[in-house]
Amino acid sequence: MTETADLTVSAALAAMRAGRLSPATLMEACLDRIAAREPEVRAFAWLDAPLARRAAAAAGQGALAGVPIGVKDVIDTADMPSQYGSPAWSGHRPRSDAACVAAARAAGAVVIGKTVTTEFATRHPGPTANPANTAHTPGGSSSGSAAGVAAGFFPIAFGTQTAGSIVRPAAYCGVVGFKPSYGTLHRAGMKVMSESLDTIGVMARSVADCALAMHAMSGLDYGAPERQAPRAPRLALVMAPAAVEPAPETLALMERTAEACRRAGATVTPVTLPEAFDAAYAAHPYVMNMESAEAIGWELAHARAQLSAVLQDRMDWARAQPRAKLVEGRAAFAAARAAFPAAIEGFDAVLTPAAPGEAPKGLDWTGDPAFNALWTLLHGPCITVPAGTGPKGLPLGVQIAGRIGDDAAVLAWAEWVRAAIA
Amino acid sequence: MTETADLTVSAALAAMRAGRLSPATLMEACLDRIAAREPEVRAFAWLDAPLARRAAAAAGQGALAGVPIGVKDVIDTADMPSQYGSPAWSGHRPRSDAACVAAARAAGAVVIGKTVTTEFATRHPGPTANPANTAHTPGGSSSGSAAGVAAGFFPIAFGTQTAGSIVRPAAYCGVVGFKPSYGTLHRAGMKVMSESLDTIGVMARSVADCALAMHAMSGLDYGAPERQAPRAPRLALVMAPAAVEPAPETLALMERTAEACRRAGATVTPVTLPEAFDAAYAAHPYVMNMESAEAIGWELAHARAQLSAVLQDRMDWARAQPRAKLVEGRAAFAAARAAFPAAIEGFDAVLTPAAPGEAPKGLDWTGDPAFNALWTLLHGPCITVPAGTGPKGLPLGVQIAGRIGDDAAVLAWAEWVRAAIA
Repeated sequence: MTETADLTVSAALAAMRAGRLSPATLMEACLDRIAAREPEVRAFAWLDAPLARRAAAAAGQGALAGVPIGVKDVIDTADMPSQYGSPAWSGHRPRSDAACVAAARAAGAVVIGKTVTTEFATRHPGPTANPANTAHTPGGSSSGSAAGVAAGFFPIAFGTQTAGSIVRPAAYCGVVGFKPSYGTLHRAGMKVMSESLDTIGVMARSVADCALAMHAMSGLDYGAPERQAPRAPRLALVMAPAAVEPAPETLALMERTAEACRRAGATVTPVTLPEAFDAAYAAHPYVMNMESAEAIGWELAHARAQLSAVLQDRMDWARAQPRAKLVEGRAAFAAARAAFPAAIEGFDAVLTPAAPGEAPKGLDWTGDPAFNALWTLLHGPCITVPAGTGPKGLPLGVQIAGRIGDDAAVLAWAEWVRAAIA
Repeated sequence: MTETADLTVSAALAAMRAGRLSPATLMEACLDRIAAREPEVRAFAWLDAPLARRAAAAAGQGALAGVPIGVKDVIDTADMPSQYGSPAWSGHRPRSDAACVAAARAAGAVVIGKTVTTEFATRHPGPTANPANTAHTPGGSSSGSAAGVAAGFFPIAFGTQTAGSIVRPAAYCGVVGFKPSYGTLHRAGMKVMSESLDTIGVMARSVADCALAMHAMSGLDYGAPERQAPRAPRLALVMAPAAVEPAPETLALMERTAEACRRAGATVTPVTLPEAFDAAYAAHPYVMNMESAEAIGWELAHARAQLSAVLQDRMDWARAQPRAKLVEGRAAFAAARAAFPAAIEGFDAVLTPAAPGEAPKGLDWTGDPAFNALWTLLHGPCITVPAGTGPKGLPLGVQIAGRIGDDAAVLAWAEWVRAAIA
């Protein structure tokens, strides 16, 4: 039997509706698990257990009534510090909740605490470890959200993605990570770095939970991915852009997944994306870093010594680029977006790696977003679902991606693929 | 001879470079004018004269070295309160400068104070009066920035535009208001309401000043609009979308302007935009208000009593709309954007009204953005230049708009038009 701390959102809500579970009991189960494992996982940037208990006891009505949610610490909360993973923001207390936090709370969700982010959701890591093996990174930048969902600290959490910051850590930690279409959840109150790329999403223990939470917060229709699809999908298998070679376990995983999907009735067709996609992919670091250097102009001028060396280097690099690179990069993104529907015409969704391989060893690097940046810049939905483990026993995930606005379809096909490989 | 407080940025910089003016003297001239006229104009949400003096004395190097700049109070400043035009944010002190303020300061500009905005840059007005006639509105939402540039309080200011909040008040106050292509100045540290629409721009006393400041802050090329154009433009004269009938003075102004442009060698051709533009225009209130209601979810939940009645009504209306309206609205915007280049093919820019007419009487309504919302949602550059006065002796402006990225051309043609009608 699943322990209370490991319930999905849907199962917890069902138990609460049936009177078998209360928000307070659910919170207590989460806090017990946290007490047991947080010392080694270090998922929280801020946790005030009495505050979380009070919030659970006061949980309102709504589609997420009484559900604990972790909030990545680049997203503001009125009742907790928001420190953006940077000593430059140590002790910062915003006056208001971010728009997405207000939406979650309006739906009855209970903010349990702030989860560790890399520095401003960029490269420099926080202290979080992978719950599956604490010698390994949980991935980043949504490190604490991914690790916390995996460890049983909370059933759902906010993540944000600029390159691969939702999908990669979710895959590394063995949970579901969903980046909706760009612009779905309002970014007011988020520490936005790249306006062209930053997207707020969720990490949870099932595809259905992502749909449920996104619907509750946005009012949009995310379907019912838990319901059986009326047919099998036509999947485009995309391995590129291959600036980075996938690890052998990922090549084997994708073959295994394609085979399992075919056995379950799907068509799985290798597709090579046209050159416009390579150009957009190559432009990603320019747009991301040049926009980020604008975003933290104040920090660079007034708190430079509190920035990591790697961030200082990247921002200096970005500022040294000709400004035309930014304009050209955005144009390359737009061209790839425009070309995408034709590139996958006749397919329901894309099947593609979620990460190069298992989570790298060590906590000083959160891994490579090589298999994520393209799907972020294309602005469509993408999601990773757990797909067993690799040679070191660490979680693997596969990624399903789709066209802008096709969020419900991508969720449904992701659940279909998950079931096919289970 | 122009008084020091009324100098353009370019003239002030030239005088400072020549040693005829210092940042401190320029600031003192501004403060003198403020002392004389602020009691009736009320452009400032925050002004600390000693702080402004110290900043001027410490002015750094750069393309805007020593230039006083007004900052609309929806944009954060680390050393001054940022109250967003709302009692819900009374006394709020952000830790950091917004990205655009950091960029201005990095270029040597001196923040003189925070300028009055309507409530969260929406409808409910601030106390600012039109310097040309204090019984009339200065327009909004960038009320204090427009009025302050007109009154000689500062030579340049930040504005933001979601419907018509830069161009309309600039036209009402007789100054230049420039909304660059969407996404040019990073919105980090701005109180963003509509992610799809909000755009940061500048208000100044000349087209050249807008180009100079935008280049200094963004590094992009805005040309040299003060240089004579090598030829006359081909202008598309667009009067629609005509949900609101222009006032007689505006119809006469547009005829007069077209005639003057033709005399100066331009072709001016009436163009009726296809239906896609009416659909996008009709969708504007849905996208703007539905996104804004998400943005201020915290305020609606925790500070509702501190919101104006009109804002509460609008947000309630927005929340009562089917969510499909937002999705459809954004799609209508995208369709109009895609159709725009073809709609003005063969033209250099669009000539169109900046506002329905002169500034309305009274301070309880900042006027109608009927002639602005379309150009905002199209994401291209638009600018108003002063064009004489109307029957009540109040300023009029004409608007030049163009394709996304054609900012330098729009500035150049705006200067050409201004000269043609001068």
